[in-house]
Amino acid sequence: MKKSFGAKTMIYPAPVWCIGTYDNEEKPNIMTIAWGGICCSNPPCVTISIRKSRYTYKNIMENNAYTVNVPSEKYVKEADYFGIVSGSDVNKLEKTGLTPVKSELVHAPYVREFPMNLECKVVHFYDLGAHTHFVGEIMDVKVDDNLLDADGKPDIEMIRPLIYSPEANVYSGVGTIIGKAFSVGKMF
Amino acid sequence: MKKSFGAKTMIYPAPVWCIGTYDNEEKPNIMTIAWGGICCSNPPCVTISIRKSRYTYKNIMENNAYTVNVPSEKYVKEADYFGIVSGSDVNKLEKTGLTPVKSELVHAPYVREFPMNLECKVVHFYDLGAHTHFVGEIMDVKVDDNLLDADGKPDIEMIRPLIYSPEANVYSGVGTIIGKAFSVGKMF
Repeated sequence: MKKSFGAKTMIYPAPVWCIGTYDNEEKPNIMTIAWGGICCSNPPCVTISIRKSRYTYKNIMENNAYTVNVPSEKYVKEADYFGIVSGSDVNKLEKTGLTPVKSELVHAPYVREFPMNLECKVVHFYDLGAHTHFVGEIMDVKVDDNLLDADGKPDIEMIRPLIYSPEANVYSGVGTIIGKAFSVGKMF
Repeated sequence: MKKSFGAKTMIYPAPVWCIGTYDNEEKPNIMTIAWGGICCSNPPCVTISIRKSRYTYKNIMENNAYTVNVPSEKYVKEADYFGIVSGSDVNKLEKTGLTPVKSELVHAPYVREFPMNLECKVVHFYDLGAHTHFVGEIMDVKVDDNLLDADGKPDIEMIRPLIYSPEANVYSGVGTIIGKAFSVGKMF
C-alpha cells in the first residue's frame, strides 16, 4: 500500500554539496545544501537553491559565482556543520581547518580537501518562493587525481560522496556499483 | 593533486529518477533522467531537465504534469531501459511489465512497483540550451508503507534508490547510514 505524505520536499537520493563563495570583504564562506542538481548538458550547468536570508545568497548575488564542493564521507561532520552555522557569525573554514583555494576561473573559493570541485558562473536565477534557484555554468570540474578509476574517470567508490535523505534527515554513504548505465537495460 | 576535467556535467551523486507522463492518446510513458533535484521548499518543487527532442518533453508540454518515480535497486535494468529507448517507438511499461497508475492529482501516471512517487504540476519552465528545465510543484509524495522506519519516515536502506555517476556511467546502491543531519556537525 502507498502512504501519502502530502506536498513535501521528499525524494531520494538528495546530494550533500558545499557551496563556496566570497563575501564583500573577500572572506571565504562555505554552506551545505541538498537542493540542487545538474540541469543542462550544453552549456554544462548545475543548479542550487538558496534562501534569500542566507549569507551565501548575498555572496552569490555580489559575485555571480560559486563553487560546488563534494565532501567525502570522512568529512560528514564538517559538511553538517557547514549547514548548521551562518558565515555571518563565523569563518567556518578556519573553524574546521579546511583550506579555501581561490578559483582562477570564477570569483569563488573551492575546498582543497574535498575530492570534487565545480567552479560555476551564474547565468540565471529565479525566485521560486522560499528559495532562489541559481543556474551556474560549470567552467571546470576538478577531481583529486588519486581517486580516478582505470579509465581515468572519477571513481565513486573512492570519492565516497554523501547522500542525504530529506524528512528522515540522515546521511548515507554510497554502496557498491551494481550496473553499467546504458547497458544493463538492453536485455529488454 | 587536482586534475581538471574542463567544463563538464560531472558531479556525484546524481539521482536516477523515472519520469511518468501521458501522451496525447493517453498512452503512459516513462523516461529515466539524472538531471534533477529539489529546488524549493515552499511551495515544494522538484526540477527535472529534458531535451526538446524527447517524447517526454512533448507530453509534459501538453499536460503540464509529470510524476517522479524512484526505482529501487532491484529495478536497475528497467530504469536503465527507460533511459535507452523512446516512448515514441514502444510502450516501455508494457514491455517491462510495470504498472502505470493514473494520478488523481495531476494528469500523469506513476509506477506502482517503484517505492517512492511524486506527483507534480509544472509551474515554470526555462530553456537553458540543450535541456529545458521544468519546475514542478509537488502535490503529493507516496511511499510504500512497508518501507518506513520506526518514526514513520521513508527508510533509505529499505527504499534502496539508485545513484548515478555521470562520466563514469555507473549505477551504485546506497551504503549504510553514517550520521544524523543537523546533529553530527555540532561538535565544532
